Amino acid sequence: MLLMKVLISKKTGNVYYYKEKGELHTKEGFIKEEELMSGKSVVLTANSEAREFLIFDGNKYDLTKKFKRGPQMIQAKDLGYVLSRTRIDKHSKIVEAGGGMGAATSFFASLVKSVKCYEIRADHCEIIKSNLELMGVDNVELINADLNDTIQNEKDVDLLFLDMPNCEKILEKDLSGIKSGRYIVCYIPSITQILDLVAVVNNSNCLYLEEVSEIILRHWKVTDRIARPEHQKETDHTAFLVFLRKY
Amino acid sequence: MLLMKVLISKKTGNVYYYKEKGELHTKEGFIKEEELMSGKSVVLTANSEAREFLIFDGNKYDLTKKFKRGPQMIQAKDLGYVLSRTRIDKHSKIVEAGGGMGAATSFFASLVKSVKCYEIRADHCEIIKSNLELMGVDNVELINADLNDTIQNEKDVDLLFLDMPNCEKILEKDLSGIKSGRYIVCYIPSITQILDLVAVVNNSNCLYLEEVSEIILRHWKVTDRIARPEHQKETDHTAFLVFLRKY
Amino acid sequence: MLLMKVLISKKTGNVYYYKEKGELHTKEGFIKEEELMSGKSVVLTANSEAREFLIFDGNKYDLTKKFKRGPQMIQAKDLGYVLSRTRIDKHSKIVEAGGGMGAATSFFASLVKSVKCYEIRADHCEIIKSNLELMGVDNVELINADLNDTIQNEKDVDLLFLDMPNCEKILEKDLSGIKSGRYIVCYIPSITQILDLVAVVNNSNCLYLEEVSEIILRHWKVTDRIARPEHQKETDHTAFLVFLRKY
Amino acid sequence: MLLMKVLISKKTGNVYYYKEKGELHTKEGFIKEEELMSGKSVVLTANSEAREFLIFDGNKYDLTKKFKRGPQMIQAKDLGYVLSRTRIDKHSKIVEAGGGMGAATSFFASLVKSVKCYEIRADHCEIIKSNLELMGVDNVELINADLNDTIQNEKDVDLLFLDMPNCEKILEKDLSGIKSGRYIVCYIPSITQILDLVAVVNNSNCLYLEEVSEIILRHWKVTDRIARPEHQKETDHTAFLVFLRKY
Repeated sequence: MLLMKVLISKKTGNVYYYKEKGELHTKEGFIKEEELMSGKSVVLTANSEAREFLIFDGNKYDLTKKFKRGPQMIQAKDLGYVLSRTRIDKHSKIVEAGGGMGAATSFFASLVKSVKCYEIRADHCEIIKSNLELMGVDNVELINADLNDTIQNEKDVDLLFLDMPNCEKILEKDLSGIKSGRYIVCYIPSITQILDLVAVVNNSNCLYLEEVSEIILRHWKVTDRIARPEHQKETDHTAFLVFLRKY
Repeated sequence: MLLMKVLISKKTGNVYYYKEKGELHTKEGFIKEEELMSGKSVVLTANSEAREFLIFDGNKYDLTKKFKRGPQMIQAKDLGYVLSRTRIDKHSKIVEAGGGMGAATSFFASLVKSVKCYEIRADHCEIIKSNLELMGVDNVELINADLNDTIQNEKDVDLLFLDMPNCEKILEKDLSGIKSGRYIVCYIPSITQILDLVAVVNNSNCLYLEEVSEIILRHWKVTDRIARPEHQKETDHTAFLVFLRKY
Repeated sequence: MLLMKVLISKKTGNVYYYKEKGELHTKEGFIKEEELMSGKSVVLTANSEAREFLIFDGNKYDLTKKFKRGPQMIQAKDLGYVLSRTRIDKHSKIVEAGGGMGAATSFFASLVKSVKCYEIRADHCEIIKSNLELMGVDNVELINADLNDTIQNEKDVDLLFLDMPNCEKILEKDLSGIKSGRYIVCYIPSITQILDLVAVVNNSNCLYLEEVSEIILRHWKVTDRIARPEHQKETDHTAFLVFLRKY
Repeated sequence: MLLMKVLISKKTGNVYYYKEKGELHTKEGFIKEEELMSGKSVVLTANSEAREFLIFDGNKYDLTKKFKRGPQMIQAKDLGYVLSRTRIDKHSKIVEAGGGMGAATSFFASLVKSVKCYEIRADHCEIIKSNLELMGVDNVELINADLNDTIQNEKDVDLLFLDMPNCEKILEKDLSGIKSGRYIVCYIPSITQILDLVAVVNNSNCLYLEEVSEIILRHWKVTDRIARPEHQKETDHTAFLVFLRKY
């Protein structure tokens, strides 16, 4: 898997990914294969005024830039907090619906024991499958079905992660398969949808609304002369996170 | 380990933790051991006007409430993003300094292969040791020493996490043991310290400043009638996160 | 009016207000009247180890610290944006309901031509009256009545500012007295209330929903060694601002 | 002045400004002059499938959209807070440098007694002059000079507003013309510049650093079905505001 290299131009800061064999062509000139494979940490373009590029191994975050695109991709800021707030760990079993483009799926799968991913749309399943292969993940069970129909069969679940419209309908089903003290986390873009969900939770006899929150990521530009929030890079609103706890 | 129960009063929302045997005494009355151990998800106090308490299994997040206190504890919002942004996974090896009270240590250890934790103060080492035991973590090597003296001996590191004063000094040492494309993440409270660090990075021949950011967690109060940011609960500033990438 | 002096201890940063005659007693010693009236910009306590205090004239912002307290006081961050976003000016006529404790009233009155302030509670009217006197404001008409009953009589209004429960009810009344292109600004703590208001606006034939926004004020601590957001001083959520434009 | 009309398409929400005589041409069809001048609050396009437009009087906020562009324009969120935090009022005298494109100048001038505006660049002076005429402001004295050379001559100043590079140099000059208890407000994009300024203030014998803050404006989208922060409209970082108080 992770054979991809990342290159960053020292002069412009432009980023390139190198996965195949052969030369790498950039706007600032091309770099020969032998230079790319030399093991050096700074490589040069072959043109007359050689440009320097930093070169290093890619990781799974870089790979998500190569994802087949489909629905909106859930971001690192939200994924990280879901994980740290619920304290799932390498022994955990996660059930997820819907799968989207597999960003949450592959992130969770790289850390926990197993992920079962429900996705109702067949075309999205194809995207997820392709992206999971790209990420080299092998502990995911991908199911092209509606979790509403099967939730009662899921057992010993440490985290139920819901990123789907009308996710409150699932909360009215049989949730006995979710472990005591464990979480259902709902990823919800609009306050109006949270109000619908809270109405269901208020009638539930097994769900406690522990937290509603949002994660705001603020990028900063810091150089030797400047220190200020980045222009044009404040992260947009993505969604609110609702943490429901099973009792 | 995780034998602790969490109880939440339906009326007041007060939270209690139950770990020992015997009765649980609360401000709203006491609950008998047989009731606590009955396996029911809602239990009653034994006093005349019985109060209902939700009861469920605690998790590691609850356990951090029982931590022996020492230095400022790093929060879930920051820990989660460090993990999701760097994409460390269950195969990763982390080196950390300083250990603080073991919050980052135990969080990382529950997800990755191994954590090596440097802490210069012997008294903090005792707190960390106690908290790691509480969390049931067994893949941490805790070292009462200064990482400045030993960084050159660390090999095959997937993440170097620095939460210590003057962490920029370590960046001038031999960093060859950190893998190509992997990160040094610095947890830094003040912009002035970031400026000191950037001065060192600008002179480095193996570090690329990929991101400076801060994570802001906003809590919301949502009931059937109310939907607004929580009063008195906006999370305070903790620290900025600096992501340096090894090339 | 503005005879109040503000004193700040150079050593501790503690703030004192001096309005009466005679000595000023502080936790750090007392300052004699002749010293206070000397015209110097730094004065000394009369005790053996004299402490230095900066001394300067108070302004209306300082005076709000001396307000008779009643309902929650609207803050400078929100008042300023209402004014700059609607571009009311020294020729403007403002109608306001409810008056609260007179903070918005006295702020607007110090800048515009006239303010008409409706407040339904007689006890709040007393507080407002007292605070307006403190601020030396003389262009306010304070009315102990419900604006719902009289809105049809108001003419040539440049800004209608509503800080009251169920303010959407007023929007169903005769609004012909508000000038074309001018604003009704609603100060609303909860999203649920905004949803009620939007339902009314959607049925209106003279109101355009131009903006819903919130103003977040972030305090920073900057010294020669430190630059970070202030701890314990992030301003809490106050309210959302809804800008409705009359057509 | 203010003869401009604002039109908003009911279907698309597109905004048009109408200032001249004659027809108004829009992407959704044209509107005849007699329709525009009819006094109705909703007007129709003259094409076969008539579109409805809301129509109302423009205000000075609308006029800023017609400003001759030059340097970055200071925003309503920042202007409003400067005014409400310093409590300048209709009797105040403001001195400002540099003038930029006249946005702060015309805003302050519409509310206070007089504004003296220093701008070092002759071309910017031309832009400011043009924009002040557009705004119908007549209480501004515009001076094409460097305030560094003349600050000692300014007397009875209620607010000194500085939006210029190296504004800390002015703080080393004779500031006796600024009234006791009044403010110098500096509009500063980067933390590094604030550190330079704080170094000067720490050596000053007449300036107290009362507040460093930033105003964050968050726009919300609220309809009958949706309530969430606006995408693509989170306001970018503009600048920090430093409030220095004269003693």
